[in-house]
Amino acid sequence: MRFAIDAFGGDHAPEAIIEGVLLAMEHYSDFDVILTGDEAAIKGELEKHGSDYTKHRARIEIVHAPDIITCEDQPTVAIKRKKESSLVKALRLVADNEADCFISAGSSGAVLAGATLLVKRIPGVLRPALAPLIPTLKDPVMLIDCGANADCKPEYLVQFAHMGTAYFKAVLGIESPRVAIVSNGTEEGKGNELTKAAYALLKDEKGLNFVGNCEFRDVMTGDYDVVVCDGFVGNAILKSMEGTVSALLKMLKSELMSSTISKLGAAMSKSAFKTLKSRMDYKEHGGAPLLGINGGIIKAHGSSDSTAIASAINQARKLVLGNITGEIERYVHNKTENEQ
Amino acid sequence: MRFAIDAFGGDHAPEAIIEGVLLAMEHYSDFDVILTGDEAAIKGELEKHGSDYTKHRARIEIVHAPDIITCEDQPTVAIKRKKESSLVKALRLVADNEADCFISAGSSGAVLAGATLLVKRIPGVLRPALAPLIPTLKDPVMLIDCGANADCKPEYLVQFAHMGTAYFKAVLGIESPRVAIVSNGTEEGKGNELTKAAYALLKDEKGLNFVGNCEFRDVMTGDYDVVVCDGFVGNAILKSMEGTVSALLKMLKSELMSSTISKLGAAMSKSAFKTLKSRMDYKEHGGAPLLGINGGIIKAHGSSDSTAIASAINQARKLVLGNITGEIERYVHNKTENEQ
Repeated sequence: MRFAIDAFGGDHAPEAIIEGVLLAMEHYSDFDVILTGDEAAIKGELEKHGSDYTKHRARIEIVHAPDIITCEDQPTVAIKRKKESSLVKALRLVADNEADCFISAGSSGAVLAGATLLVKRIPGVLRPALAPLIPTLKDPVMLIDCGANADCKPEYLVQFAHMGTAYFKAVLGIESPRVAIVSNGTEEGKGNELTKAAYALLKDEKGLNFVGNCEFRDVMTGDYDVVVCDGFVGNAILKSMEGTVSALLKMLKSELMSSTISKLGAAMSKSAFKTLKSRMDYKEHGGAPLLGINGGIIKAHGSSDSTAIASAINQARKLVLGNITGEIERYVHNKTENEQ
Repeated sequence: MRFAIDAFGGDHAPEAIIEGVLLAMEHYSDFDVILTGDEAAIKGELEKHGSDYTKHRARIEIVHAPDIITCEDQPTVAIKRKKESSLVKALRLVADNEADCFISAGSSGAVLAGATLLVKRIPGVLRPALAPLIPTLKDPVMLIDCGANADCKPEYLVQFAHMGTAYFKAVLGIESPRVAIVSNGTEEGKGNELTKAAYALLKDEKGLNFVGNCEFRDVMTGDYDVVVCDGFVGNAILKSMEGTVSALLKMLKSELMSSTISKLGAAMSKSAFKTLKSRMDYKEHGGAPLLGINGGIIKAHGSSDSTAIASAINQARKLVLGNITGEIERYVHNKTENEQ
C-alpha cells in the first residue's frame, strides 16, 4: 500500500513528518510513501538521517509542491487556489488512485474541505465525519463527528453510527460495537432537538447495536464503542477533555513542586506520571480518520511530533488493511438497495 | 436574609443537608433557614447534632412537606402534582417572598421546571440559565447556560452574556468581566449556525466586554470570565470536564499503585493530590445559580455532602448580598427602555 503524506503540514513540519515516516518504516515493511512539498527541502531533511534514509530510500518518492496552505488560509479558497500546495498535491494522489491513504498534520479546515472537494464523498454518504479514537478507562472510544459538520441533521447521525460501526468491524475486528448518542441524560426523552430526533431513528435502525444515550461524563468510562454527535458538540467534548487534561497536569505539577517532600515523592512516582501522560496522549493514538470519503484520509494533530506521525501512519495501514472505504461503500449500497 | 432549603433533595439528604446548614451557621451569622421536608425526620436529624443544633435553633424553621420529588419523576408533571413535596414547598417560599433564595441538591429537571413555573422568570428575561462557576488555572469562569435550555436562539445567548456580566459585577465586584462565546475556533467565522448568529449580535452589543470566541480547550485557562453557550453544549463541556477529571485521577491512582516505589512516592505527595482534588472539586465551589428567575435559585450537585451544601449556602449569601435579581431586572428594564 502507498500513502500520500503532506510533508509541510503541521507545527513541526517537515522535520517531524520525515522523522515519523522513517520511524514507521523501521516498524512496518508493508507500505511506501509519496511525500509532497518542496523537493529540495524534503531531500535535505531525509539526508540528515543518513543510513536510516538509505535503508528505506526505495520506499520513498517525492512529489514537488512549492506552496503551503497555512491555518490562516480560508480553507475552501486555499484548496481551489493553491493547487501547488503540499496538501492539495497529496490529496490529488489519493483522488487519482496513486495512493491509498492521505495523511496530514496541517489545517483541519483545509483537510476537510480538500478531501470533500478533491477526493469526494462516497456516493450516498450524506456527510463525511471526523472520527478520532479517544483513550478511556478501558478500550478507546470513537467520537464521531468531531468537527467536520458544525450543524447536523438527524439522518447524518444515523450514518455516523453506521460508518463508526463499519470501522470497528473492519479495522478493529469488533463484530457488534456498542453505539450510543452522547446526550445530557440517559433517558430517551433527554437531549436537544437533534439528538431526540436521531434517537427516534436509531432505535429502529437495522444493522446497529444501538444502546441508547451515553451521558457526557460517561464517554471516557469505556462502556461504549461508537459515540455519535454533531461536529460542534464532538469538538466541545474532545477539546474540553484535552483542556482538562492539560490544566489538571499543570495544577498537579505546581502542587507537587510546592513542598520539598512532595517534590521528592513526585520524583519517585515519575514513571507512573509518564505512563499516564502517554495513555492520555493523542500522539500515541494516531490521527483522526475522516470517514465517508472515497479514499483513506487521516488528519493528524497539528502539534504532532515524529511519534504521532508514526502512529498516524500505522492507523493508515489499518484503515487500508481493513478496507474501510469499501466497507462504507457496501453499507451505503445495501441501504439504498433495501430502500428501493 | 432567609433561605428556603429542600432538606430532602440529593443523594445524601437529609443528613448532608442538615449538617451543611449547621456548618454554614458556624461560619456566617447573617442568615436564617426554612427547611422543607418531613418534620419529624428533620427534627430527629437536627437533634443528633446536640449542642450545635441548640446553639442555632432560633435560626431554623421547619415547614412540613411529606412528599419527595425524585430523579425518576417527570419534572413538569411532578411540580404540578407533588404540591406537598419538599422541593415545591421550598420554591413556594421564594415565590411568596418568604425566603430570598432557594437551595436544593434534588433533581435538576425539577428545580429548573419548578423555578420557572412557580417563582417565574424576571419579566423580559427570555430564558433562565444555569450558570456554574468552574475552577480554572486562575480565577473561576462562569459557563452559562449549562443545561437549562438544550436548544437556544442567538438572542438567548446575548441575554446570558448580560446576566453573567451582572453576576460578576454584583456578586464578585468585577467591573468589566470578559465575555466570550465558546466555539470550535477563535475566528469570527468559526462556529455553528447558533454561535455565528450570536457573535454577530454580541459584537455590536452595548454594556458588555465581548472579547470574541473562546476555544473549547481554553475554557479552563482562566482567560475569560463569562463563557456563553447553549445548555446542551454547556452540559457537554461541564460533564466532559468532570468525566475527564474522574477518569484521569483513577488512571493516575492505578499507575501509582503499580509499583512499590511509586506507591511510596505517592504517599509522600499526598498533600499535593489532596489540594488538587479540592481545587477541582465542585463541592468547594458551591452550586450553580439559575439566573433570570425572580428570586435566588441555587442548584447544588446531586451528590453534595455537607461541605458542598455549606458552600452552596455561602453562594446564596453572595447572590442575595449582591442583589443579583435586582441587577438583572435593572438590565432588562434599561434594555427595554432603550429599545422603545
